[in-house]
Amino acid sequence: MQNQAPESPIQRIVLIVSDGTGITAETFSHAVLSQFQSVSFQQMRIPFIDTLEKAAEVAERIDRYTQERGQPPIVFSTLVDQQILARVRQSSGIFLDLFGTFVAPIEEALGVKSSHSVGRTHMGVTSEQYRNRIEAINFTLGHDDGQFVRELSQADVILVGVSRCGKTPTSLYLAMQYAIKAANYPLIPEDFERNTLPATLLPWRHKLFGLSINPERLSEVRNERRPNSVYASLEQCRHEVAEAERMMRREGISWHSTTTKSIEEISTTVMQAMKLGSTTY
Amino acid sequence: MQNQAPESPIQRIVLIVSDGTGITAETFSHAVLSQFQSVSFQQMRIPFIDTLEKAAEVAERIDRYTQERGQPPIVFSTLVDQQILARVRQSSGIFLDLFGTFVAPIEEALGVKSSHSVGRTHMGVTSEQYRNRIEAINFTLGHDDGQFVRELSQADVILVGVSRCGKTPTSLYLAMQYAIKAANYPLIPEDFERNTLPATLLPWRHKLFGLSINPERLSEVRNERRPNSVYASLEQCRHEVAEAERMMRREGISWHSTTTKSIEEISTTVMQAMKLGSTTY
Repeated sequence: MQNQAPESPIQRIVLIVSDGTGITAETFSHAVLSQFQSVSFQQMRIPFIDTLEKAAEVAERIDRYTQERGQPPIVFSTLVDQQILARVRQSSGIFLDLFGTFVAPIEEALGVKSSHSVGRTHMGVTSEQYRNRIEAINFTLGHDDGQFVRELSQADVILVGVSRCGKTPTSLYLAMQYAIKAANYPLIPEDFERNTLPATLLPWRHKLFGLSINPERLSEVRNERRPNSVYASLEQCRHEVAEAERMMRREGISWHSTTTKSIEEISTTVMQAMKLGSTTY
Repeated sequence: MQNQAPESPIQRIVLIVSDGTGITAETFSHAVLSQFQSVSFQQMRIPFIDTLEKAAEVAERIDRYTQERGQPPIVFSTLVDQQILARVRQSSGIFLDLFGTFVAPIEEALGVKSSHSVGRTHMGVTSEQYRNRIEAINFTLGHDDGQFVRELSQADVILVGVSRCGKTPTSLYLAMQYAIKAANYPLIPEDFERNTLPATLLPWRHKLFGLSINPERLSEVRNERRPNSVYASLEQCRHEVAEAERMMRREGISWHSTTTKSIEEISTTVMQAMKLGSTTY
């Protein structure tokens, strides 16, 4: 878990205050603060602040941190309700109004006023988008690691690659974040001996995208799972990766190395290559 | 999939321009724009803009949209490199500099300069955080729906509830976004007949969190999976939900209704209740 315990007294407190989950603001503030690498931050998310009572508690808490630490916390807010926002601002925090800052220029550009209503950032459970998302998650879970090949016709993309190259987390991320039905199918030594793609994949060649990985890194990853096995040996990893890349080259399958990439980066590259979702280039 | 096709000529184009994946900015801009419900937006993500050549292409594309639509697109940017940023700004877009806007006040508050370097927002593949995340995803996949109960000692949380109440997507989200090892365990009619929690859960009572759901909604969800079955009947759903809530009440397990909630909202509530991650309250 990413639980951040206080490490030093000069650590700066960062509060994410939201009337929703605050997850968007948390990710955003993490990105902005990553540009201050000389400073250590303790980031805390304070979700569901949707009443004046809760706002008053947050303001008190901010003032308490200021007193205890001798310096005010940085407060990222995505509060929309003007009264709740004003109440939290009546505190000693360094206040960054993520939504408000951009609403005015957008209002001007569009020539319309914003609703200032507490929006539902995430998909509500009864929406079509939500249903698509759950359906994609279920599809991806059911089509992990080459299971249930009969429904591959419904897949938006089928990731192929050797065992432990990152197919499963990427598939799940695509389903979870973008409602993309992402199946994945392992390339195994038997496929390399037969020197052909698994027969079940042949009708769906246009949906295939390959993931590859540096053999040294693959050996590390496999050793965590099955220490000192042939499966995890550098020799075996080198062989499988070389064979998989040879097969992908021969079959005309685009592929991408996952070695130094985050799940988000791999997913974005898959979406670009396969023209999925709103990603354009 | 959330592929947004143009629906009307008055739809406003929104571009998310990033040197990384742009996923954070995409989610953020979606939240800000949800306050303008009278306007229809076509949101497009343009990731990996990390050279002046790519910046020039983006600037051209912005100008092309302005010409074609007769109005400039709204451009959310998380570009960090000052030269690349300046190049994109030499265009007709309505430019919102998500990072730059907040860097100056933070610099002032902290008394240090930002690195202005292209940061890695997401966890790199070799980091400890990344390993924890993959480990949590694997744990959660292996402990979905009551599998492999032997390792429940390692779980950060165990979600319980009737079939199709939202346990699996919530568990996966907690693992993917917060590296939380979230197992889940179904409460089934046999448990209600025995009138006791499943024996395998008894040692981990302090890790249990319940999800419940409105029976009408549950019946809808189950009917999508197994139409016109006893399993999906309103009578059966009413019975199971009532029994599950009775059991959770008797066993002192906190629970939350998922009926109208997004995966993010349910996950945040679980984190609050179980004091997991950086969420505080």
